[in-house]
Amino acid sequence: MTGTTAAAFHWEDLTQYAPIPGISGSVRSGAELSAALFRLEAGAVVPLHHHVNEEFGQVLSGSLELTVDTEVTTLVAGDGFLIPGNVPHAAVAGAEGCVLLECYAPPRNPFVPAEAGTPS
Amino acid sequence: MTGTTAAAFHWEDLTQYAPIPGISGSVRSGAELSAALFRLEAGAVVPLHHHVNEEFGQVLSGSLELTVDTEVTTLVAGDGFLIPGNVPHAAVAGAEGCVLLECYAPPRNPFVPAEAGTPS
Repeated sequence: MTGTTAAAFHWEDLTQYAPIPGISGSVRSGAELSAALFRLEAGAVVPLHHHVNEEFGQVLSGSLELTVDTEVTTLVAGDGFLIPGNVPHAAVAGAEGCVLLECYAPPRNPFVPAEAGTPS
Repeated sequence: MTGTTAAAFHWEDLTQYAPIPGISGSVRSGAELSAALFRLEAGAVVPLHHHVNEEFGQVLSGSLELTVDTEVTTLVAGDGFLIPGNVPHAAVAGAEGCVLLECYAPPRNPFVPAEAGTPS
């Protein structure tokens, strides 16, 4: 990226969070949505949870075992998912870990609850 | 991806659109957002336009010259952008083309205006 605008950004320039052991990432929120890039180490676990926000995700590399309600699916790079608001979901990163791009609407802000981790 | 759920999907299983010469892609919309994956050929042009939807984008491969208002930025794989609603923007794909992942909130549905192209 050359130059800067209010629109364009580098993920690595944003505050880095470590909300869950083995998971780190950063979040960019606007008025209508939040976008997040997460790096999950091999076997990292996102416990079952839910939120009002609709959630889109795309596996950029590695793989992810995704549980939505009682359905379990293994996603690989290039696969997407869309989870309606308030639907319980969980995930486990595969043997090579996982890089995951996500968008939430409405925005998740603050994204990381105080009890879930410390911005670093 | 093994198995299927209502949440997980393959982009290539969705309806493919060709909204603009040199640009093709597909869209998955929910209640709160639309996600879209576009493939832009080298030099493909997205003319200056605007919409009420906030727009997040991530370059997955290749490069993109992005104009937001009067600011021009060249983004490469891994770079993101976030454009508020109603802000004019345009783009030109670089010499290697560009694969672009985008999210819009609120959803853009129908995404492709009737005059812009024919679903194929």
